[in-house]
Amino acid sequence: MGVDAQYGGVVAAPGMNFRSDNCYGVAPEIADAIQAANQGTDSSYGDDKITARLQARFSEIFERDVHVYPVISGTAANALALATLVPSHGAILCHAGSHIAVDECGSVELFTHGAKLVGLEAANGKLAPPIVETALARFEKGSVHHPQPSAISITQATEFGTVYRREEIEALSAVARTNGMKLHMDGARFANALATLGCAPADITWRAGVDVLSFGATKNGAIGAEAVVFFAKKDVRDFEYRRKKSGHLMSKMRFVSAQLEAYLHDGLWLKLAARANGSATRLAEGLAGVRGADLAHPVEANEVLVRLPDETVARLRSAGGIFYDWEPPQAGSTLIRLVTSFATSAEDVANFIRIAKG
Amino acid sequence: MGVDAQYGGVVAAPGMNFRSDNCYGVAPEIADAIQAANQGTDSSYGDDKITARLQARFSEIFERDVHVYPVISGTAANALALATLVPSHGAILCHAGSHIAVDECGSVELFTHGAKLVGLEAANGKLAPPIVETALARFEKGSVHHPQPSAISITQATEFGTVYRREEIEALSAVARTNGMKLHMDGARFANALATLGCAPADITWRAGVDVLSFGATKNGAIGAEAVVFFAKKDVRDFEYRRKKSGHLMSKMRFVSAQLEAYLHDGLWLKLAARANGSATRLAEGLAGVRGADLAHPVEANEVLVRLPDETVARLRSAGGIFYDWEPPQAGSTLIRLVTSFATSAEDVANFIRIAKG
Amino acid sequence: MGVDAQYGGVVAAPGMNFRSDNCYGVAPEIADAIQAANQGTDSSYGDDKITARLQARFSEIFERDVHVYPVISGTAANALALATLVPSHGAILCHAGSHIAVDECGSVELFTHGAKLVGLEAANGKLAPPIVETALARFEKGSVHHPQPSAISITQATEFGTVYRREEIEALSAVARTNGMKLHMDGARFANALATLGCAPADITWRAGVDVLSFGATKNGAIGAEAVVFFAKKDVRDFEYRRKKSGHLMSKMRFVSAQLEAYLHDGLWLKLAARANGSATRLAEGLAGVRGADLAHPVEANEVLVRLPDETVARLRSAGGIFYDWEPPQAGSTLIRLVTSFATSAEDVANFIRIAKG
Amino acid sequence: MGVDAQYGGVVAAPGMNFRSDNCYGVAPEIADAIQAANQGTDSSYGDDKITARLQARFSEIFERDVHVYPVISGTAANALALATLVPSHGAILCHAGSHIAVDECGSVELFTHGAKLVGLEAANGKLAPPIVETALARFEKGSVHHPQPSAISITQATEFGTVYRREEIEALSAVARTNGMKLHMDGARFANALATLGCAPADITWRAGVDVLSFGATKNGAIGAEAVVFFAKKDVRDFEYRRKKSGHLMSKMRFVSAQLEAYLHDGLWLKLAARANGSATRLAEGLAGVRGADLAHPVEANEVLVRLPDETVARLRSAGGIFYDWEPPQAGSTLIRLVTSFATSAEDVANFIRIAKG
Repeated sequence: MGVDAQYGGVVAAPGMNFRSDNCYGVAPEIADAIQAANQGTDSSYGDDKITARLQARFSEIFERDVHVYPVISGTAANALALATLVPSHGAILCHAGSHIAVDECGSVELFTHGAKLVGLEAANGKLAPPIVETALARFEKGSVHHPQPSAISITQATEFGTVYRREEIEALSAVARTNGMKLHMDGARFANALATLGCAPADITWRAGVDVLSFGATKNGAIGAEAVVFFAKKDVRDFEYRRKKSGHLMSKMRFVSAQLEAYLHDGLWLKLAARANGSATRLAEGLAGVRGADLAHPVEANEVLVRLPDETVARLRSAGGIFYDWEPPQAGSTLIRLVTSFATSAEDVANFIRIAKG
Repeated sequence: MGVDAQYGGVVAAPGMNFRSDNCYGVAPEIADAIQAANQGTDSSYGDDKITARLQARFSEIFERDVHVYPVISGTAANALALATLVPSHGAILCHAGSHIAVDECGSVELFTHGAKLVGLEAANGKLAPPIVETALARFEKGSVHHPQPSAISITQATEFGTVYRREEIEALSAVARTNGMKLHMDGARFANALATLGCAPADITWRAGVDVLSFGATKNGAIGAEAVVFFAKKDVRDFEYRRKKSGHLMSKMRFVSAQLEAYLHDGLWLKLAARANGSATRLAEGLAGVRGADLAHPVEANEVLVRLPDETVARLRSAGGIFYDWEPPQAGSTLIRLVTSFATSAEDVANFIRIAKG
Repeated sequence: MGVDAQYGGVVAAPGMNFRSDNCYGVAPEIADAIQAANQGTDSSYGDDKITARLQARFSEIFERDVHVYPVISGTAANALALATLVPSHGAILCHAGSHIAVDECGSVELFTHGAKLVGLEAANGKLAPPIVETALARFEKGSVHHPQPSAISITQATEFGTVYRREEIEALSAVARTNGMKLHMDGARFANALATLGCAPADITWRAGVDVLSFGATKNGAIGAEAVVFFAKKDVRDFEYRRKKSGHLMSKMRFVSAQLEAYLHDGLWLKLAARANGSATRLAEGLAGVRGADLAHPVEANEVLVRLPDETVARLRSAGGIFYDWEPPQAGSTLIRLVTSFATSAEDVANFIRIAKG
Repeated sequence: MGVDAQYGGVVAAPGMNFRSDNCYGVAPEIADAIQAANQGTDSSYGDDKITARLQARFSEIFERDVHVYPVISGTAANALALATLVPSHGAILCHAGSHIAVDECGSVELFTHGAKLVGLEAANGKLAPPIVETALARFEKGSVHHPQPSAISITQATEFGTVYRREEIEALSAVARTNGMKLHMDGARFANALATLGCAPADITWRAGVDVLSFGATKNGAIGAEAVVFFAKKDVRDFEYRRKKSGHLMSKMRFVSAQLEAYLHDGLWLKLAARANGSATRLAEGLAGVRGADLAHPVEANEVLVRLPDETVARLRSAGGIFYDWEPPQAGSTLIRLVTSFATSAEDVANFIRIAKG
């Protein structure tokens, strides 16, 4: 293993593993923070000093008093956040390909006690006002026969490696406000979006109308650390009871909070994300030169969805490349998904491109 | 901080903190295992190599092919295990003071979709057949009007610092079998019980009729690592879907599994538990000599429930002692609970006794 | 079948059936109202004219603008009412022998998504402030670990045939207010209580601090007609969605509303209840003269819980008497429950007493 | 009100009300049966004699031992039936416009505790194998991340007034079997379909592979009477507990069962349905001659979805016609829905056509 030069910290993990950023481990600074937190005794269930500091730290980063609740999985963050905002008779509008709609086994439906996820098709994984408004027309406001649209959930960065601009979020937020809905952001890859946009975290969250954010760190270098961030106290409602009742209040929470603290320290989160994004960009640029390659979406974060000839795909796999088919093969080519992480090695990227070029 | 001599590993955390074993940190061997697991890439969501090894390791320890599912909290372990075994129309018989009945905010009721917890009073925190049978008589078998008793849940070691003997478990298991019920064991302090009994793990679980065990490591030196252990494959049913759907399937699970692996390595779990138990025993012995002290239960694990004069309680608190009142003060004395951990220092125990003696 | 003289309407059903008031049929006036409602067309799902009139009628009877929602079972009324008032992390204090605790298969737990029913023992089926306050002390206010007491539920008339006085309800209501809880009344036999007390419906409901009433008509002469009555609009919250989502919004609701309208017309409900109560009183008076008979509770509504020698019980059964054992036989006698209805015949009562006297 | 000649029974309700069959009342034979059931006493909660007879009657009609459970709403029938067959982690494939997907406020999602309804677009409201198979490909079998397709739900007659043929059902059933799924039929208008097809009830249910049927009577002349019909005992599972726990077990069930018994007596159900279907057919034939009219679907039951010029729609409404817009007006015309019932008068149909012709 070599030490990456970009910020003098990450130990790159080799192996051409582009299956998921979850396949990678922990950033050394975060691992060290866990060790450092192992001092003396402290209160359990989140009443500890590190968790207390976290509130201030997040508030500083988001330039506003925010309300932060650590959990250990993105599924928990999304389901608990949405269940807090959306009643059992509610409906949540989201992209048809979003994680909550496709990959969480109906967790939101469970935690909301049967709210309806309305999955909408939209280009590049991004919802837009007309699509949302068309969907809203299907639900009669105030009719007990119809689930009542109560939230829009967007993903930043999206499942397709694209990124919402501030004005895009504002436009969706306006639709939400007009229709009495809340705006939730699944930020499992929030840092990746932010690293691309280069704006303040506030600009693409509460300033743009986001009510609650699932703030992810796990995919970007933590062991298991996510945070539900509410931007207004009134929205917190009974969140803390929901977290406890669903088994998501860790007794030794300070070790989760320590991960988040380290993640946010000295810009680590953005450095890690920038590194992952950089690898994706290089991968996309390299693959653009491969015969028959076709990028499905702009590469704006740490994912590359690219259509490649089936023989290229096969060659990459036989050389050890690890990645998902995103769709079944079709007419001689396959859409594959490549995810890069903070610890993806430059050699892996270079090798992958080289092998793809055949 | 000094190094404890007992097994040459634990760094004791000083502070006369007897509030909970959760207030203590991580055993060094377990912290090291997290670091060691941070190598290369691996599959996520439990398809990794460490989690795979865990199945074999638990099977070895329990002398039987078991089915092991790591989660991050005891509440999750209990609620998911019981929800897998008990239908929505079921009832679960447990001690009135058990964690699932008192301290988990109705998590079992949520995950079972409304099964009824029937809390039974019983001496020393331990259920016994006549108490269970009396309760069963209240429910008409097969009547849709009554929740149907579907499981007995016992806690080992109990909330009161006592320990079930094998034959006590067998007797409850016989009642369960006769009535078509399953037997669940909340083993948040399973190692503490085992360290006291000195028997094989199998002897007080499946050999005694336990169907599913919530195996705890968090209170005894892990960061956040519990395991649901099924002793028969058919009982696993849809557990894996339940774990995912409730947000308890960690993406980087290998870091939870690594904790469990280290915990079980070379008897660490029993050494840690023995150390905690030893501190409790010394505490109980010392407090027995305090004027007006009255032990509420036999001290068989790492908890001491003792009634002390209110002035003694006040003196201990003003000297920095941290602990819970277990009941409101009454007639000049108070029942307090003292919990020791693997990292409770000998000095703390000695000081506490000395101060109590006044 | 003979016509009862008391109000010139009810057709008495013979058979010494004292098992439940549910075993009896429909009052003729209510059956006629169903026929009369079968005219022309009307809006479905409660938007019809009869349901609209019901709001005014209930408001008149309760001397206040109330919010009335018909459903078809008492279990539905209780579970929907309580789920509207109590969050998933809530607790509901009720009598240990109450219908919601014992006879509804955990319906409240299902509809609240896992709130905890706390069943309290109390004399004559009636909760009293000290009992409630003792129970409240077990729950730490604001702690996420403990279900939060959110409602008291009382039954009027009780399962034991007793009746709360206005001042008793006021005292419980004061405890509820002080502790931020709501007061629910299960009025499956509300008319029976009212017929005994002779006060205004308002006096034992909102004037005494009741927030929501499950108003029963089924046991007292309807086919299947209950109403959830909220005394303040703000408490209605999302009740209407809950009713629909749980399948309890009948499409042809006017036929349920017609039953309620007839029930309330010209005091029919109180006449029917008075008739049932009268039968119970005569039964109790007659049985008082039976050797070895021991009334378990004051007979204040339409239920008689009486301990009789086992040979007397056997003789009654062999003569065709139908009733429940309320407890298993003990020391030569058995506590049985006798329920009278609006249609219990005077001959049945007389015969039952005669046979009991042997 | 006049007496309809077709079978000498129905009292037609005038008013050009084509909004829903739910807007009409009760067939006289069914109303009489309620009166007739009001004799003496009987056991409650479905243990009565009429409900017992119902099992035999349904078994006779379906030519097989079936398991019949009366409930009072179609929403309850659908949600309870599907929740019995589909786990919380399951998915249910249905038409995008089906009642369970659109009009029941997420009742199925509530009762299944969060299963996913997958609404599929398909011509004329009818699912077909290729559409189902394409949808199935989106769910990875055995992956805990994806809800597992567990049932197909079809509606007979459909929401669009069309009817599945036996071979169409068989084809869907084959897909269900191949994929380990159950087949549910929402038969809110089952009689209407049967009246059109003229086949045996068995032919389009269990002989064609249907596992469970929501058998509706409410829309076709009952007050509130539906039945969940299981065709195999093993599929009943815990249905009876679910019905009770959700408040859907009526205490005086015999009055629901009496409706169903009368409905099935002497072919009444088919006569009523034939009458409703006939009105729809005449309506469709008449409207075919209206300038600018365009039937959206074949008229095979008691619904007509027809596009009419907006001025025609306005003229019909100002003449008293009552009906729903099925879609918002578009380009000068609107798709409206007209539902006929057993009690729709011939005059209303004739008048409506006459007014439409202008």
